[in-house]
Amino acid sequence: QVALLDIDICGPSVPRMMGLEGEQVHQSGSGWSPVYVEENLGVMSVGFLLSSPDDAVIWRGPKKNGLIKQFLRDVDWGEVDYLIIDTPPGTSDEHLSIVQYLSAAHVDGAVIITTPQEVSLQDVRKEINFCRKVKLPIIGVVENMSGFICPKCKNESQIFPPTTGGAEKMCQNLNISLLGKVPLDPQIGKSCDKGQSFLAEVPESPATLSYRSIIQRIQEYCELQHSQEEKII
Amino acid sequence: QVALLDIDICGPSVPRMMGLEGEQVHQSGSGWSPVYVEENLGVMSVGFLLSSPDDAVIWRGPKKNGLIKQFLRDVDWGEVDYLIIDTPPGTSDEHLSIVQYLSAAHVDGAVIITTPQEVSLQDVRKEINFCRKVKLPIIGVVENMSGFICPKCKNESQIFPPTTGGAEKMCQNLNISLLGKVPLDPQIGKSCDKGQSFLAEVPESPATLSYRSIIQRIQEYCELQHSQEEKII
Repeated sequence: QVALLDIDICGPSVPRMMGLEGEQVHQSGSGWSPVYVEENLGVMSVGFLLSSPDDAVIWRGPKKNGLIKQFLRDVDWGEVDYLIIDTPPGTSDEHLSIVQYLSAAHVDGAVIITTPQEVSLQDVRKEINFCRKVKLPIIGVVENMSGFICPKCKNESQIFPPTTGGAEKMCQNLNISLLGKVPLDPQIGKSCDKGQSFLAEVPESPATLSYRSIIQRIQEYCELQHSQEEKII
Repeated sequence: QVALLDIDICGPSVPRMMGLEGEQVHQSGSGWSPVYVEENLGVMSVGFLLSSPDDAVIWRGPKKNGLIKQFLRDVDWGEVDYLIIDTPPGTSDEHLSIVQYLSAAHVDGAVIITTPQEVSLQDVRKEINFCRKVKLPIIGVVENMSGFICPKCKNESQIFPPTTGGAEKMCQNLNISLLGKVPLDPQIGKSCDKGQSFLAEVPESPATLSYRSIIQRIQEYCELQHSQEEKII
């Protein structure tokens, strides 16, 4: 059982990417019901509360924080094995609030996404510093948009060149795990736009293999943490 | 004389992209002095106030808004022809504050940047709705990362496919100007990382020609607006 919570209040992309655009949240006796992609995957996003996907949520921090609190308190997630929270970029209200509201819960850690250029790595180093300041463990870093194989001639181009060594060098320097690199594949964007699972659509592509290996590494990290905790108890 | 103000408080990329990393803001009798790239281009960013480019600014909305106010009030920009303000994505504190703080000034309008996929266009439609709600004129939309020419075989790939027609269709539907499309060119990322001017480094590239045409269209828009205002006065 997996729950996916989108706390990008002003730019919620999860409903579209999950093929759930136009869905509405239902109120039940036990609170808000998530919208289900499949039986074992429930999703919550501000996108389900808007009358049109083009509606803008023009809210300052406090209102955004209020909704995030409601998502955690009022959604009836049921029994879940994993709660995955998708945040916007940055180190501001959404990030501070989610850490604060979950402070009494056990959080396995953060997965941080970057692209290979220094301009992105610089923002990501700030996010890593944020995690360290608020004592949020870091599971690892994923490098997205890593290289592009021309479909015609098979030549690989670094479209976002890793001028300072990319995520690999940054992870070495900061002593953080690199969970994997996901190559640029136009089908990924298409799948997101159409709300289809890229992993199911193109199961043998290099990007799918990379995604699967990243998922496995995250699961191993979480299992190791839990077994260590059980020993301590 | 051009002034560039970076109001992305938690992810300031302007100092790196302008080749100004490590520069500090100087205090003068008349306020904070911008950092100058060239004599006619002054820049202000929270990045100049940090002791390291990796430092995280972990601030909620009100503190971010306070700094934006200071940037507008306390920086001695001198006489400028254009003040360009770079915002993070979204429709929240930074956007509301900058519109509010400039409400007594004449603002020419917003330039909105997207990529070709529907997932991005959806966020951009929200930003367009934001501009309309706060009565900020929209100069136009720029489509970034529009297509990639393989350097080896010259085949063009749509790396971020415009599955719903890209910025062109969106602009038609919403009756907004499309200012231009900038193709993906790995040299752009390199120039940003190195803090060099892509336009000066590769003056004949298709992306440079696209940038120049976009700049010209923005200038024409502003000049037309100003000449109409003079007539009214």
